[in-house]
Amino acid sequence: VREDLSQPQQTSVATLTIVYDHHTRGLSDKLNNVQHDHGHEIVSSLHVHLDHHNCLEVIVLRGKKAQIQALGDRIAGFKGVKHATLALTTDGKGLR
Amino acid sequence: VREDLSQPQQTSVATLTIVYDHHTRGLSDKLNNVQHDHGHEIVSSLHVHLDHHNCLEVIVLRGKKAQIQALGDRIAGFKGVKHATLALTTDGKGLR
Amino acid sequence: VREDLSQPQQTSVATLTIVYDHHTRGLSDKLNNVQHDHGHEIVSSLHVHLDHHNCLEVIVLRGKKAQIQALGDRIAGFKGVKHATLALTTDGKGLR
Amino acid sequence: VREDLSQPQQTSVATLTIVYDHHTRGLSDKLNNVQHDHGHEIVSSLHVHLDHHNCLEVIVLRGKKAQIQALGDRIAGFKGVKHATLALTTDGKGLR
Repeated sequence: VREDLSQPQQTSVATLTIVYDHHTRGLSDKLNNVQHDHGHEIVSSLHVHLDHHNCLEVIVLRGKKAQIQALGDRIAGFKGVKHATLALTTDGKGLR
Repeated sequence: VREDLSQPQQTSVATLTIVYDHHTRGLSDKLNNVQHDHGHEIVSSLHVHLDHHNCLEVIVLRGKKAQIQALGDRIAGFKGVKHATLALTTDGKGLR
Repeated sequence: VREDLSQPQQTSVATLTIVYDHHTRGLSDKLNNVQHDHGHEIVSSLHVHLDHHNCLEVIVLRGKKAQIQALGDRIAGFKGVKHATLALTTDGKGLR
Repeated sequence: VREDLSQPQQTSVATLTIVYDHHTRGLSDKLNNVQHDHGHEIVSSLHVHLDHHNCLEVIVLRGKKAQIQALGDRIAGFKGVKHATLALTTDGKGLR
């Protein structure tokens, strides 16, 4: 997960891309539960089945940068998550 | 799940919309596993967190109508799935 | 688009599945604009490229049934939209 | 768009996150068309309406790294695209 902790209280939009092995017992439940626990930050997620073992999931997050970052780190640390990338973006306001 | 079993061998595209309680233990794992077992029919899925308990998941399927229907029925029968709707559509070919 | 206009003021969740030819000039813009005009009802949407011509789009809606239905009918009527199915579901509350 | 052009012929999976103003005339059409022109690389995309002006779109890509990168750069350069981030990930094979 990329680190960018400047202005941690700023509202931000981000996508967290993870690749994981869905055969890891309990991982899908855990991923789903943590997303609900952070229902205010999580907008929706897209799931793609890469092959028999591997899933790609993209989670769209919106909230304070520090919280988004913390949630990204937490998910990245789950057993069975092979790769995680957090892409912080903008909500577009103030940009032309 | 809506029944429409005419021309079961025809290739079709469909969306399966389910609402479920993610607190049902093992359900997310089961949903994820069944989607991987049917990797040829399943394109991708979108997940929306409705509230602390309820998830909406839309699964895009492509394959023979009979198989799509069977998969829809199987998922609809999982313990914890409160509502399921299968919308068979077209792949657009032959239509203007 | 399926009609179910009982209890039009009830809050509901729905998915609208459309298949359209993305070569229809202006259609993607129009679809995107109408979704933003109804930003309160629309949660997110998933787009799958079926082939060189045809797109499948699933739009997740949340709001009063009458408004969801009206929006579904409006989109279904756009030139270039070949097929549209509205699946009204529940937000899961009050169901076990 | 992040640059990582080592091993350009390697097959990779990536997510491209863009934020854009959907009022830019023709942009949604252009985004949709370019995705269809690259139908082999693009799996599906998720669209979230941030506010009346701004959209977030996450596009899941799969293919040779060089082509994914080129497509990301092309989309990032479209007039009206405010921000673009390409997150290259793995298809999970060979990792535990």
